[in-house]
Amino acid sequence: MIRLGFAKGHGTENDFVVLRDRHNVAPLTPDLVRRICDRHAGIGADGVIRAVKAEHISEWDGDPDLWFMDYWNADGTIAEMCGNGLRVFVRYLMEEDLVPRNEVYIATRAGRRVVVETPAGDLKAEMGPARVGGPTHLEVNRRPLAGVAVDVGNPHVVALLPPDIDLEALDLRNAPCFDAGVFPNGANAEFVRSDGDARISMRVYERGVGETRSCGTGVVAAAAVARHFGDGARQCTVNVPGGRLFVEFNDDMTYLTGPAVIVARGELTLPGNRQ
Amino acid sequence: MIRLGFAKGHGTENDFVVLRDRHNVAPLTPDLVRRICDRHAGIGADGVIRAVKAEHISEWDGDPDLWFMDYWNADGTIAEMCGNGLRVFVRYLMEEDLVPRNEVYIATRAGRRVVVETPAGDLKAEMGPARVGGPTHLEVNRRPLAGVAVDVGNPHVVALLPPDIDLEALDLRNAPCFDAGVFPNGANAEFVRSDGDARISMRVYERGVGETRSCGTGVVAAAAVARHFGDGARQCTVNVPGGRLFVEFNDDMTYLTGPAVIVARGELTLPGNRQ
Repeated sequence: MIRLGFAKGHGTENDFVVLRDRHNVAPLTPDLVRRICDRHAGIGADGVIRAVKAEHISEWDGDPDLWFMDYWNADGTIAEMCGNGLRVFVRYLMEEDLVPRNEVYIATRAGRRVVVETPAGDLKAEMGPARVGGPTHLEVNRRPLAGVAVDVGNPHVVALLPPDIDLEALDLRNAPCFDAGVFPNGANAEFVRSDGDARISMRVYERGVGETRSCGTGVVAAAAVARHFGDGARQCTVNVPGGRLFVEFNDDMTYLTGPAVIVARGELTLPGNRQ
Repeated sequence: MIRLGFAKGHGTENDFVVLRDRHNVAPLTPDLVRRICDRHAGIGADGVIRAVKAEHISEWDGDPDLWFMDYWNADGTIAEMCGNGLRVFVRYLMEEDLVPRNEVYIATRAGRRVVVETPAGDLKAEMGPARVGGPTHLEVNRRPLAGVAVDVGNPHVVALLPPDIDLEALDLRNAPCFDAGVFPNGANAEFVRSDGDARISMRVYERGVGETRSCGTGVVAAAAVARHFGDGARQCTVNVPGGRLFVEFNDDMTYLTGPAVIVARGELTLPGNRQ
């Protein structure tokens, strides 16, 4: 049997299992990640984050004393970074008293990221630059839509919905189709409605996952497009099915502010052995 | 904050959160059940089972020393019984050393049920009678299908698929339509392929839930129809997406045998107060 101490938390209902492995003695495998994230036979989550000291990560050449965010998607693939996951990771580290409560530096595969707690108790995370690219197109249920390509470390296509499409009624059970010449490996798609006054509402279809309640980089991508084609405001409130987030722009840098809570702690028991 | 000790387990990937409340001091509410079962903001499950001594249950007039299975669906409604849930409940009670390991009697809203552990470690649960009714019809994605009504304490319609419909390829994202005159409150639907030699494969659409990986009463209903229209064999192996179950018939009584495992234990923390 495999026994693992775990915590489960979420940020705007994007949820993660956090495992603590300070000394890097329990590396993850794709199979183990998939079994932990299985929502019926495991504990269930959108991804797993292993907390390990950066000194053990050979690809990390920064401060060895930081906590490294070893992030994996539910399908067993490794991802560079995850905006909602970063906040949940920091909330876990704070609650376990493993980092200070003010300004926390985290080592990630996308580089060092800083996270601070706001007076309201939300967490504000540095998300890196969002690069708004050129126009592209996508199709949802055979309906063609105009989109804009955005690079937030991962590829996004943001579609500003025409007035005759109701955001809430949009059927996102089937994967959107992208321009295969531009996105040979697919992309994440955001469907956005402007609510005016630097506020937008959106839904997201994540590559390889399906519709999710929230996606941190997708929220940043949508806000960047709204800013690019709107009044250039330096901030944007984004409503997603799982809650509300807040994006700020400062020169080339973006920041994502939102809630993050730990909802369960315990021990997970899975059949079999580590592979 | 609400803090609850919990266990999570599953039987053929039909999963449940079990809460222990021997002295009946922490009754469930629909809101609390929905929040526990939320797969992103809670721990996530198909239902919640509260373990309480039967002496505290006013509607129970049997042995007051039994454990009562206080079963709730994820949507916050109360159900009489749940075949996979019953096995998970007994597994929990066995692992917590709250019942003997051989023959366990459980108080449920559907009456007393006996569960025994097989030499292979599976649990065999008494499921009550399955009453095969008359022919009926249903529609899936506008395709009409012939069905058979079955009462296993709850209403089922079992469709034996014609050869031109591939069980695995069937699109069950939309709710089937039933004869509203016969099933004014809907029904659970099983889609069954005979694999010969007292073996069937099935998928299930549960009323108010959608497609699930397994459904205990649905498995019994499908096996009862296969028996009724087949060779009358007293046993049937049933493959569901979440695993394999085994149904036995003895006069009017049915028995369901299958796995049940506890995969996590811990403490759940939810915002707010009990209502």
